[in-house]
Amino acid sequence: MIKAGIIGSTGYSGEELTGLLYKHPNVEIDFLCSHSYVGENFSSLYGNLRRFVDEKCVSDEEAFKRISDIDILFTALPSGKALEFGKSAMENKIKFIDIGSDFRLKSKELYREWYNLEHNYLDLLEKSVYGLPELNRSKIKEAELIANPGCYPTASTLALAPLIKNNMIDTKNIIIDAKSGVSGAGRKASIGNLFVECNDSIKAYGVASHRHTPEIEQNLSELSSEDVKLTFTPHLVPMSRGILSVCYGKLLAEATQENLMNLYKDFYKNEYFVRVIDELPETRWVKGSNFCDISLRVDSRTNRVIVISAIDNLVKGAAGQAVQNMNLMFGLKEDTGLEATPIFP
Amino acid sequence: MIKAGIIGSTGYSGEELTGLLYKHPNVEIDFLCSHSYVGENFSSLYGNLRRFVDEKCVSDEEAFKRISDIDILFTALPSGKALEFGKSAMENKIKFIDIGSDFRLKSKELYREWYNLEHNYLDLLEKSVYGLPELNRSKIKEAELIANPGCYPTASTLALAPLIKNNMIDTKNIIIDAKSGVSGAGRKASIGNLFVECNDSIKAYGVASHRHTPEIEQNLSELSSEDVKLTFTPHLVPMSRGILSVCYGKLLAEATQENLMNLYKDFYKNEYFVRVIDELPETRWVKGSNFCDISLRVDSRTNRVIVISAIDNLVKGAAGQAVQNMNLMFGLKEDTGLEATPIFP
Amino acid sequence: MIKAGIIGSTGYSGEELTGLLYKHPNVEIDFLCSHSYVGENFSSLYGNLRRFVDEKCVSDEEAFKRISDIDILFTALPSGKALEFGKSAMENKIKFIDIGSDFRLKSKELYREWYNLEHNYLDLLEKSVYGLPELNRSKIKEAELIANPGCYPTASTLALAPLIKNNMIDTKNIIIDAKSGVSGAGRKASIGNLFVECNDSIKAYGVASHRHTPEIEQNLSELSSEDVKLTFTPHLVPMSRGILSVCYGKLLAEATQENLMNLYKDFYKNEYFVRVIDELPETRWVKGSNFCDISLRVDSRTNRVIVISAIDNLVKGAAGQAVQNMNLMFGLKEDTGLEATPIFP
Amino acid sequence: MIKAGIIGSTGYSGEELTGLLYKHPNVEIDFLCSHSYVGENFSSLYGNLRRFVDEKCVSDEEAFKRISDIDILFTALPSGKALEFGKSAMENKIKFIDIGSDFRLKSKELYREWYNLEHNYLDLLEKSVYGLPELNRSKIKEAELIANPGCYPTASTLALAPLIKNNMIDTKNIIIDAKSGVSGAGRKASIGNLFVECNDSIKAYGVASHRHTPEIEQNLSELSSEDVKLTFTPHLVPMSRGILSVCYGKLLAEATQENLMNLYKDFYKNEYFVRVIDELPETRWVKGSNFCDISLRVDSRTNRVIVISAIDNLVKGAAGQAVQNMNLMFGLKEDTGLEATPIFP
Repeated sequence: MIKAGIIGSTGYSGEELTGLLYKHPNVEIDFLCSHSYVGENFSSLYGNLRRFVDEKCVSDEEAFKRISDIDILFTALPSGKALEFGKSAMENKIKFIDIGSDFRLKSKELYREWYNLEHNYLDLLEKSVYGLPELNRSKIKEAELIANPGCYPTASTLALAPLIKNNMIDTKNIIIDAKSGVSGAGRKASIGNLFVECNDSIKAYGVASHRHTPEIEQNLSELSSEDVKLTFTPHLVPMSRGILSVCYGKLLAEATQENLMNLYKDFYKNEYFVRVIDELPETRWVKGSNFCDISLRVDSRTNRVIVISAIDNLVKGAAGQAVQNMNLMFGLKEDTGLEATPIFP
Repeated sequence: MIKAGIIGSTGYSGEELTGLLYKHPNVEIDFLCSHSYVGENFSSLYGNLRRFVDEKCVSDEEAFKRISDIDILFTALPSGKALEFGKSAMENKIKFIDIGSDFRLKSKELYREWYNLEHNYLDLLEKSVYGLPELNRSKIKEAELIANPGCYPTASTLALAPLIKNNMIDTKNIIIDAKSGVSGAGRKASIGNLFVECNDSIKAYGVASHRHTPEIEQNLSELSSEDVKLTFTPHLVPMSRGILSVCYGKLLAEATQENLMNLYKDFYKNEYFVRVIDELPETRWVKGSNFCDISLRVDSRTNRVIVISAIDNLVKGAAGQAVQNMNLMFGLKEDTGLEATPIFP
Repeated sequence: MIKAGIIGSTGYSGEELTGLLYKHPNVEIDFLCSHSYVGENFSSLYGNLRRFVDEKCVSDEEAFKRISDIDILFTALPSGKALEFGKSAMENKIKFIDIGSDFRLKSKELYREWYNLEHNYLDLLEKSVYGLPELNRSKIKEAELIANPGCYPTASTLALAPLIKNNMIDTKNIIIDAKSGVSGAGRKASIGNLFVECNDSIKAYGVASHRHTPEIEQNLSELSSEDVKLTFTPHLVPMSRGILSVCYGKLLAEATQENLMNLYKDFYKNEYFVRVIDELPETRWVKGSNFCDISLRVDSRTNRVIVISAIDNLVKGAAGQAVQNMNLMFGLKEDTGLEATPIFP
Repeated sequence: MIKAGIIGSTGYSGEELTGLLYKHPNVEIDFLCSHSYVGENFSSLYGNLRRFVDEKCVSDEEAFKRISDIDILFTALPSGKALEFGKSAMENKIKFIDIGSDFRLKSKELYREWYNLEHNYLDLLEKSVYGLPELNRSKIKEAELIANPGCYPTASTLALAPLIKNNMIDTKNIIIDAKSGVSGAGRKASIGNLFVECNDSIKAYGVASHRHTPEIEQNLSELSSEDVKLTFTPHLVPMSRGILSVCYGKLLAEATQENLMNLYKDFYKNEYFVRVIDELPETRWVKGSNFCDISLRVDSRTNRVIVISAIDNLVKGAAGQAVQNMNLMFGLKEDTGLEATPIFP
């Protein structure tokens, strides 16, 4: 059995990961660490896991001590908080997956610019492998330290990769308009995320300034011969889970709906967790699962292509993808513990 | 492998059952029958099951023909529509579980009074076993025809059974105030169930006249030495899934919170799917699972007890309980295929 | 023009009151006071009132100074926080309406028991008039200090008053099962009220212990020759506004649906803000208005009556009723500034 | 008093219009016509207007007869259904406002292409004036027949007009990504709009094919020296009301946030119903009002501008704008009957 520790277990991603690892046939949870709930029973916070995960949350201090006993450490923390844990994991020669954002941007300058933090673990950053299995599988298998992708970057990169890789669209003319459920904002007491403030309303936020922008650009630039700069607009939608990413590209040559659908079906033909579908994706169809549904439409009037992807932000956008990465790192079947079909309604 | 057929597969209960049976290790779905979507791909209606359940829905006619090939038939149909299927199942000597309401009331007079229908299959009615495993397990194991309990009756009967069984409350003074998510209303085009009509509002409906009233009374009367008559008020709540049943009883003798909690914990100590908890149940903690969470509070000022139960109406209140019954009928472990922990958020 | 000051203006009730007074033809808002947002522009918190209420929030200190300049002071504060303001208002001989709970319970013992606070302003408490105009209009007209009723007590008292007043039901056998939108929990950063925690779920809370219980009992006891003790269960429903109060009574004599409907229509025939209707009330039909919709059903099988009322918790349950009271105190037409019809959807 | 008739009064736009006209000081509703609810009391469908609008709905036939008695006729109907009513209104020499889509597109070819209908009333089409007061006020004042703008076109045109009018963005490179509440789908029994199908999920629909595309293009082309062709993507969001339109433009020259905000503030400085704000618009801040909130962000990294507008689809996007148009046609103050401030929460 793989022994796992989770730091930040009581946030929404942490809880999702806890649930997934609890059910994972090859994993044993060694400890759950929580900054805010030390000593509290995990299931007193998450009553869904009552009877299943009834152990007490441990402190950071305790967690650091137990790192030497485990095989893999997961962090699901705010920016800047995973660095020390990563260092300790490497020193203890165990695997490490950061679900947060501390190892995603390869450039420390970009990290400083967008996160307003100094990255003092450049050796770790160098080691880190970006954990998007559909595009990076072989490296992930060999990795010690995984930067688990952000939710928006997961949905958006998977949506655009086939076009970028095949030089089908103008890399200077990409717009991503994405929509997220409120769990993406995390489980912290804030007035802006109260039920009453979010219910029955929609807003854009972080327009032209969201931190996932350089991450998406980094991903697409790697697939392209050019340096991709794009416009990214996230929105908050009155739903608990789900991300819908709507990506606009200008076609460099004419292409039909059929051409492009075939391109996508071919590109992802071996990818279990990507469903290329004819219908337009909806977040409800992937809820609770690690799937990414993708479809597209050609707007022949304007020679644009609109690619739409849907994921569950807590699963493929966070904890599920982390498990997928762990499976690869440990040589397990990639979908182990991720067999859940989406739940509807 | 148990070969199963589902009639009414494209309603919400039918879909839930289809998903559960698809994943069930001992079951093979032989056919999915749908009145409204004959010839359509199941997953074109329920995109969550895309890639998993892509077969075409068959007609009633086709379904009748195939009954002889299967081991168990499930019906999830409006009142009065399951009778013929039940008859055919019995003639073909296969197991039959009606998730609908056609075999629940033992008295054809009550059936006529509350459902406004004539029950012309009294032999079947006699054979039918009420499928609430926690109270009726041994009969279910021997049954050929199961009347799967209604959603409200499941939540309410489990909530009140320990009190009734132990003569703790006045059987003439029971009030049940229950709340359901909108999936309970079924998947039919009706203005009253439109998003805009249900969103951000709550209402009671069927006050003093809901069809689940005699079913709950029948259940409780069987547990009691007296004939139970109670007041039952269902509500429609702006959520997709879930039932919360709040049951008021007048204590016949003084009892403390501790006494009664112990009574409940003891009563359900061997029941995997009932979680007797100290905290007040919430529907979110059972979503997507076959669990029934129960707790209670003694109101010593008025000598009343308030018992609260929460279930997922589509799982323990319908399809999950049907699978639980099937497992019992076929000698399988009772939770086979029902291992999913509740999903939150 | 009546000059008004509002303490606690940035909570949900405070905001509703601010909006109502802004539009009120006879009122001029002199100051808006907020503990948490001193110096901030009111409409930066409530963008709906942008252009209308753009003034800065003042501190408690500043508010105390300006009490002498105004004609009426409103407080919308947590328990215990309105007392000093009430004192100052009385000293300055201006009218005072507490939308909070500090002057509702006439007994300081009950206040201590249920609010866990000491009431050191018994002279004010004696002066205070319970501001439920439909039952207390003449006293309100003469009052200097109004205790504005709680949201649940408003809905529940109006629902039961005709039965109690006419000795129709057993006062020892009353159960109230009420449901509230999340705005009732106030605008404070708390994890329990986050969108993700409330969305798509229902729960009861404060079972057999909610502070509105003695307030409802006080109201009903005043209408009765007996001391009323009842069971009250509030619920949190995933909607922003609205209260539905479902009240169960045991009829002392037989009565038909028609009898009782006539009783109610007669009882409220001169009350503009009470609509006695044949259909079952729904919170959506009163949203944004000061109306209380009431209907009932006789359950002849059990000789019970179920009375259901619906209000907007922020209007008839708080700010609207405060304006109604103010209108009475200043000799204005009772519905001045409250002409808004309910908004749907 | 202006005597008004409403055809299609029982849809969501019709209901909103009925409520607005009921409260309008210069209007008397002469008849409410409904295809589906002939003879039914209006308030039995819309309980919010109980006591206010209790009259019976009349048939089409009856409506045609009464056109000669009124001063203005409103239609809120599906495509193709308003034509005959428009003809009759013109023959009776009364004013006519079509809230539907039958007179918006000036080209019958475009009408055929996008609506799949033949327009056989070209004389009416020629007479029709596009009722967007902020851009077309003087013509509206003289008009007999108004084509009330669509909801998406209202939000999108107001968002982009200042940029287009001032040649600030590339007219070949405009993308509009818009989000609507479910009331935009109308009040018809359809499975796709059931609560359970829409709740907690988001989807795009009509991608590259929505009928509002040519309407927006027509509006922007009139403001430009060039023929505008753009990409438009609407979405369905789990909320009752509201449209958020997010418009992407490529700046032709460099421009700062401040430059553009000043341009917008100046452009709309005399427009009561447009609030140009520094904060990002949210639909909750305009709910129940005729306001359009607009803001923008310059993405200097990509030299794009993102303009965001929020309206209530049933008010500024339908009934409120119709009243605004009526006010202009009859020489009334433009905001008469539209004084409601937005309601939150």
